[in-house]
Amino acid sequence: MPASPVPAELFPGHAAMRDEVEAALAAAVPETDPPHADLPWLRDFAPFPIPGRLRAAMRHSLLAGGKRLRPALTLAAFDACRAAGDSFDRDPNGPFVVEPVWRENAMRAAVAVELVHTYSLIHDDLPCMDDDSLRRGRPTCHVAFDEATALLAGDALLTLAFQILSRLHPHISVGACIDELASAAGAAGMVGGQVEDLAAEGDPHSVGSGKQLEVIHRAKTGALIAAASALGGHVAGAPTAVVNALRSYGANLGLAFQIADDLLDLSASSAALGKTAGKDVAAGKLTYPALYGEKGSRRRAEDLIAQAIDGLEPLGAAADPLRALARYAVDRDR
Amino acid sequence: MPASPVPAELFPGHAAMRDEVEAALAAAVPETDPPHADLPWLRDFAPFPIPGRLRAAMRHSLLAGGKRLRPALTLAAFDACRAAGDSFDRDPNGPFVVEPVWRENAMRAAVAVELVHTYSLIHDDLPCMDDDSLRRGRPTCHVAFDEATALLAGDALLTLAFQILSRLHPHISVGACIDELASAAGAAGMVGGQVEDLAAEGDPHSVGSGKQLEVIHRAKTGALIAAASALGGHVAGAPTAVVNALRSYGANLGLAFQIADDLLDLSASSAALGKTAGKDVAAGKLTYPALYGEKGSRRRAEDLIAQAIDGLEPLGAAADPLRALARYAVDRDR
Repeated sequence: MPASPVPAELFPGHAAMRDEVEAALAAAVPETDPPHADLPWLRDFAPFPIPGRLRAAMRHSLLAGGKRLRPALTLAAFDACRAAGDSFDRDPNGPFVVEPVWRENAMRAAVAVELVHTYSLIHDDLPCMDDDSLRRGRPTCHVAFDEATALLAGDALLTLAFQILSRLHPHISVGACIDELASAAGAAGMVGGQVEDLAAEGDPHSVGSGKQLEVIHRAKTGALIAAASALGGHVAGAPTAVVNALRSYGANLGLAFQIADDLLDLSASSAALGKTAGKDVAAGKLTYPALYGEKGSRRRAEDLIAQAIDGLEPLGAAADPLRALARYAVDRDR
Repeated sequence: MPASPVPAELFPGHAAMRDEVEAALAAAVPETDPPHADLPWLRDFAPFPIPGRLRAAMRHSLLAGGKRLRPALTLAAFDACRAAGDSFDRDPNGPFVVEPVWRENAMRAAVAVELVHTYSLIHDDLPCMDDDSLRRGRPTCHVAFDEATALLAGDALLTLAFQILSRLHPHISVGACIDELASAAGAAGMVGGQVEDLAAEGDPHSVGSGKQLEVIHRAKTGALIAAASALGGHVAGAPTAVVNALRSYGANLGLAFQIADDLLDLSASSAALGKTAGKDVAAGKLTYPALYGEKGSRRRAEDLIAQAIDGLEPLGAAADPLRALARYAVDRDR
């Protein structure tokens, strides 16, 4: 099985972040106990030993590589907030210092977001859902293991995400961070979007309109990307207005990524995608290109990115990496 | 389909608690938005409307009745801590008053525990797991709806549990409560126990010994009951020693309940159980009676209950309902 293709940097500094995230993810579900000594905040999660087969299934899907868009976004949003000056620091008279615990919190939030993303991929790939056998160039979890193990590995990753957030250093609101992630991931967010998407499958007319399609995509894909961005603000101690701006930026970015994915799915090969190509069309799913055509879809994505970039105004030049990331979303399939 | 049998009180005061829990669960996943006006803390969970089919599936499994052992345990543990005197109140000079927000926190924790329990039942019943079609006298979620919807309803209930805990009134540690629940529910707890249990199925000798069977049951069943009990202590602001005592009590109680379930499964009819009877034996699962015989199993359960009751010493007479609950665990199948 070929390795997943390594994409170019999504924004300046992305490659280093991606490597850091890979190490943290590997430590979050270590091959053997105890966890990596360099990440002591991941210790002591275990009242009982984690079964080896479960651990292997969790690692199979979690450590399959990829762009790590969501955790990188959390870290980039955190960095932007901290670099935006000390205008919203807790102690406005203190020197501007990013203390290690702040950065550690940012990494925990980033890891939690990727755990939720990975759980959603494992469950989406199951036979009763999208029934996909290939993901990031590797067999999906239930193909490599079995359905029951894949189901439980997803459950365990989702639970671990909240456990990791529960151990944030308490200089920020643990409750607000968990609410942000759970709200995005749950019945009124990602899970709800998935239910609506399955209902629309094979019956595109049931979706009714582009507006409904957008609601589905905003819930299914956009909500978690919005939360990833907002969490960067939460763990930086940013004021509510900045957290809200980051959430809107992420929501627009997420929808633009989804439209770009639809466009890619039309044109790319399975090898380039690292997953089965042309599947959306075969499944009779309503997509942006099916509704608005290729040109109209690209224009919609560009409008969203323009909105996303506009919303970063309060962060000034510190948000340049986030602006570069937004432009990548629409430029990558050219 | 006959309604699930309503059991007698597990301890004095249990019936009233059960009714209160039923109302809170119905409000946690309301039939229509907005949520019940009497429970304002459940509002505003929704960035997007929850799809009707998802909502119906969540309610189908959540509102199927039953003893509500776990949430009742959380409330009883909370009440015991608050009644134990003000020796561990935050303000030792203040009058002993259970403020409404304290009790509201206890109900949130109780609801969160039952959401996690219900999610685990939905996933356990799926065809790739235990493939069960009957639960609490009603068709299981994937039979009443479909597999994809059941899978997602479980995911949504698990996520909602953490969201509800994230909104605890902040006079207690939100992080500690979420850590307690996630630790019990995750890879090193309930999910891990389920994986080990499936591995042992049809191959009882792989379990090797009674000790291994006990580890599986402590993880699969005991961990969540232990967390339910400990959470009552957390939300009461009890000191660590009391929280630990409540956790041990719950762990022993949970294992005793599992042994009693094994004994019931041997003897009872499907109608009395509200689920398919004799299933464990048919599946070749290793059970306590299979390993120790009926008499030996009953003795083991009684030992565990004696340990559970001993551990309640620090709470004095305030823990009498918890002692009654422990005795119920071993007496109910007589």
